[in-house]
Amino acid sequence: MTLALDAAAQDLLFREARTANTFSDEPVSDEQVQAIYDLVKYGPTAFNQQPLRIVLVRSEEGRARLVQHMAEGNQAKTAAAPLVAILAADNEFHEELPSQLPHFPQAKDLFFSERPVREASATLNGALQAAYFIIGVRAAGLAAGPMTGYNAEGINKEFFGDGEHSVLAVVNIGKPGEDAWFPRSPRLAYDEVVTTV
Amino acid sequence: MTLALDAAAQDLLFREARTANTFSDEPVSDEQVQAIYDLVKYGPTAFNQQPLRIVLVRSEEGRARLVQHMAEGNQAKTAAAPLVAILAADNEFHEELPSQLPHFPQAKDLFFSERPVREASATLNGALQAAYFIIGVRAAGLAAGPMTGYNAEGINKEFFGDGEHSVLAVVNIGKPGEDAWFPRSPRLAYDEVVTTV
Repeated sequence: MTLALDAAAQDLLFREARTANTFSDEPVSDEQVQAIYDLVKYGPTAFNQQPLRIVLVRSEEGRARLVQHMAEGNQAKTAAAPLVAILAADNEFHEELPSQLPHFPQAKDLFFSERPVREASATLNGALQAAYFIIGVRAAGLAAGPMTGYNAEGINKEFFGDGEHSVLAVVNIGKPGEDAWFPRSPRLAYDEVVTTV
Repeated sequence: MTLALDAAAQDLLFREARTANTFSDEPVSDEQVQAIYDLVKYGPTAFNQQPLRIVLVRSEEGRARLVQHMAEGNQAKTAAAPLVAILAADNEFHEELPSQLPHFPQAKDLFFSERPVREASATLNGALQAAYFIIGVRAAGLAAGPMTGYNAEGINKEFFGDGEHSVLAVVNIGKPGEDAWFPRSPRLAYDEVVTTV
């Protein structure tokens, strides 16, 4: 009774959605990714910063360049997924603040002039955006297989030569295949997570 | 045509949902927070780690202890919101991996024996969980007002004396009040965010 979101949407996004390890052959189109982005771009971040960058790995050559940096246990599924997206944080996101935060363009220099501050902010807010993206993949009726098992420095150098980007996750995307997931693991109980003061 | 999620749910979670700066007097119950957690606990993380901890600030005393650490521009709304939740990452989350990742309990020692590695993982995955929580607040028909403008060290010491927790965001929660939001700021275009290799 307490949720406004309908049961089918709850299932699609959270309750029945699962991290997929195998996928069908059905391709994922650019139109689908555009529809996902057009939805999740509205997710809130601090100062409306938008550090998330997405590299869609479509070519055979791109796939090979990525797979070599994946942890061994992630290589086969990353090689086989219909689409793979590299999610990264742009640590120079503050350059966009004057256009993206028009009512407070000074934020760029007031808060983000120092690189370590920017980097921490890009990591946190980029991760929020990565989570919105994962939800968006599910909203498109697709399964996401997010992974953090890789050589991050290798991916950063391979795909972002400028030293300004930090990979946050690599996400396999597609329709689930056979035996797509492991049994669901437990979750912490409410009382283990939530306290009241 | 490309999204499976129905339009009403898209609006509720992303398109019409806004970061609220004022709230009505309507209280937010523990049952609502339980329903939110019961939905978003299923959001995916690496190794099924669950570093997110939530402190609900309900007492007058608790509110005062929090407000003093908020940035000046966030104090009045944090003092006035029906409910405030402190979202933090537990940097010792790895202790729970043997119970939460029963098919691979060795992950605790294999991957998370070093504190800096744990902390980076808790920040990234805690931020993913924070985003799921914000989506969950909206799924409950409530408005979220997430903030990162505060003295983080002050909040960590005030609410988590053990040195093992790092605040990720403070979120005001309730039904939106009068003039609850600013005009929506722009978002980056698809081509500014997404590239293909």
